[in-house]
Amino acid sequence: MHGKIMAAPPAPAHPYYPLGVEIPHYVANTAPVPVLMISLGGMLGGVLLAACVLARRWNPNLTRAQLAVLCWFVLCGSLHCFFEGYFVFNHTTVASSQNLFAQLWKEYALSDSRYLTSDPFMLSVESITVFIWGPLCLLCAVTTAAKSSPLRHPLRIVACMAHLYGVALYYSTSLVETYFTGRAHSRPEPLYFWGYYVGFNFPWVVVPAFLLYDSVTTITTAIRSLDGVKAGLEGFQMRNGAARQADKKAQ
Amino acid sequence: MHGKIMAAPPAPAHPYYPLGVEIPHYVANTAPVPVLMISLGGMLGGVLLAACVLARRWNPNLTRAQLAVLCWFVLCGSLHCFFEGYFVFNHTTVASSQNLFAQLWKEYALSDSRYLTSDPFMLSVESITVFIWGPLCLLCAVTTAAKSSPLRHPLRIVACMAHLYGVALYYSTSLVETYFTGRAHSRPEPLYFWGYYVGFNFPWVVVPAFLLYDSVTTITTAIRSLDGVKAGLEGFQMRNGAARQADKKAQ
Repeated sequence: MHGKIMAAPPAPAHPYYPLGVEIPHYVANTAPVPVLMISLGGMLGGVLLAACVLARRWNPNLTRAQLAVLCWFVLCGSLHCFFEGYFVFNHTTVASSQNLFAQLWKEYALSDSRYLTSDPFMLSVESITVFIWGPLCLLCAVTTAAKSSPLRHPLRIVACMAHLYGVALYYSTSLVETYFTGRAHSRPEPLYFWGYYVGFNFPWVVVPAFLLYDSVTTITTAIRSLDGVKAGLEGFQMRNGAARQADKKAQ
Repeated sequence: MHGKIMAAPPAPAHPYYPLGVEIPHYVANTAPVPVLMISLGGMLGGVLLAACVLARRWNPNLTRAQLAVLCWFVLCGSLHCFFEGYFVFNHTTVASSQNLFAQLWKEYALSDSRYLTSDPFMLSVESITVFIWGPLCLLCAVTTAAKSSPLRHPLRIVACMAHLYGVALYYSTSLVETYFTGRAHSRPEPLYFWGYYVGFNFPWVVVPAFLLYDSVTTITTAIRSLDGVKAGLEGFQMRNGAARQADKKAQ
């Protein structure tokens, strides 16, 4: 009898960190991880293929580099509007649901339990991502596919800045909390911390940094060329004016 | 004796919300609010005046609108690097300090106690603001004062996006937490919530939105003009080529 009173505390009802975090109504996933990954990959692959076919029909002159940028923004727009949109609208029931998106979020949350605890920062950043950055990325895809669009590069800078600042805050909020309080939201296994948490988000550091640099360079080159053209025209007008005055004097 | 045992819980040792939030070593401000405000205002006014004088010496053709934009970015850069820099380096001791910046932060924290609790989101967003957006704003001020700078508008888009996304998350994280958990970080008096929390941050919604729109419009106009010049040149070359071929045939 006494031995039973001293029994160890019950094992946690879920695999998430920090130990003791409350995740009500959690139900373990039923689908294996490869099935979840292949399902998401297949859906995204289909969307990207369709986007490429449509874009090539609309503008047959699209280069491979332009198609790659288009695919990036279609990928971002799809993930933001649909996958992250599912989270924003269902964050209180993800832990207890078994549809594809819920199971994907439960697997990913092994690296960041904030997705299962209605964390205020995650809800804020994801809501802005779903309602503003998602549509903006799709608009970036459209202006990339268009034959000519002066909005292409300014919009890209805005979208890339949203991704860079968003991912910087996503990484830093969790790391700062771990540093100051010792609470980590990721399971300690390298697969979850390095693979899921760092790895899955790292493309949103590298690609936006590259595209941002490219767009800033393109715009500065364009403005410099235009300044050159204007200076040339002004010089031409001045020379022309001087020549006319000389003609008048000669008359 | 029994009456003493049933005494009410001790009054909170500080005026911050949510009630019961822990703010160790808090010491009440010694300076009155108008003195704090006038001191900060005076320092910022001096910096802006010096910036205007220097900028006009460097580039006497600066218009009033350009000087206003310059002042905005110098104001942002100064607040980010120094005032917010003080918070990032001293967030654990602000509550117990009595220098000007600490007293200003303690007054402002009546509208947002996260500045006195080493909140991970505040530390993340403020660190990025101090080390990246602060210097970027000063660079925006320099490119605004320069006679010609093709980097001016791309950099402005980056800085304005940083401000807009930052303030959106600053507002939303706190409001989402209040909505889902009932915990408010602001005292309930309108002066603190509407005056300090909403009011003092609102310029970082309005001005960046205006400057972002202006820079995107300027860039799209420039790219459209350049496209026009290129199309004109191509047309000229084609006509020229056709005329030469006609000449050759005629010969």
